[in-house]
Amino acid sequence: MRRIEGEQYLLRIFVGEGDKVGFKPLYKVILDKLKEKGFAGATVLRGIAGFGPHSVYHTENILRLSRDLPIVIEVIDSKEQIESILPDLDDIIPSGLVTLEKVRVIRYTHKHEK
Amino acid sequence: MRRIEGEQYLLRIFVGEGDKVGFKPLYKVILDKLKEKGFAGATVLRGIAGFGPHSVYHTENILRLSRDLPIVIEVIDSKEQIESILPDLDDIIPSGLVTLEKVRVIRYTHKHEK
Amino acid sequence: MRRIEGEQYLLRIFVGEGDKVGFKPLYKVILDKLKEKGFAGATVLRGIAGFGPHSVYHTENILRLSRDLPIVIEVIDSKEQIESILPDLDDIIPSGLVTLEKVRVIRYTHKHEK
Repeated sequence: MRRIEGEQYLLRIFVGEGDKVGFKPLYKVILDKLKEKGFAGATVLRGIAGFGPHSVYHTENILRLSRDLPIVIEVIDSKEQIESILPDLDDIIPSGLVTLEKVRVIRYTHKHEK
Repeated sequence: MRRIEGEQYLLRIFVGEGDKVGFKPLYKVILDKLKEKGFAGATVLRGIAGFGPHSVYHTENILRLSRDLPIVIEVIDSKEQIESILPDLDDIIPSGLVTLEKVRVIRYTHKHEK
Repeated sequence: MRRIEGEQYLLRIFVGEGDKVGFKPLYKVILDKLKEKGFAGATVLRGIAGFGPHSVYHTENILRLSRDLPIVIEVIDSKEQIESILPDLDDIIPSGLVTLEKVRVIRYTHKHEK
């Protein structure tokens, strides 16, 4: 096992589960773009509740909530790699929130990997 | 599409799914308060496992775990807006954890919005 | 209710749901180690999708995805406490990602607690 440390960036993309590009969920379009651009990994989390600037959620209305739950896509990579995806996100995301944070990363890889 | 950038704060509130104010789940009380105070959005995530200072979880005991899963409420906004909600959280949260982090925000909004 | 503030660290551990130590899921082994070491709490989140360096995910292939969903374990504690667990993580985690971030913490505890 190799342990590699360094300062990298955490990119978090907040969209709605119901957001689509054509018939495809927006979060899957973003995931495909991340893979295409050579990112090493990504994690997609789905919230159980939430609200956004356009959402008039009634918490009693379970159906409405369940149809557009919040999605958070998380990516950790170098500053350069993260910045390379931002123009793509500009094209893909109609409305939403993206955050950037510096994080100290410890990456474990198997011995036989470079 | 408009892209707005700036430095803002990420507020994360950790409570239990079983925490209640009267008959209402604590996380819903917090969500309502955030909407009332004019926050633009919030995301509620539910964990699949976890433990807190008062929890004596036996991982074998699935039922116990499923009855008080961890809840994380995330809010991103200006320092002033985040600080305006802290006194309310002091009143609402009996025990729990709140964290604050600076984040660089890219906010996408539709052209027709201000 | 007591409110305690201070600077602490957020440790986030990214593993796969299918990762095991013997027959036990890796995330449960990590959770047990955190409890054994006296951490006050931890939260385990499960993603709904994602990919890692070794994953050749076909998004069409739902079964493949569902068998190794991403897991994020989150822990907030003092720098010393967080650093005390890193050698254990070195032993336990074969490949994965760990991130560290400084966070400002507000901790609520009941009056009768120390």
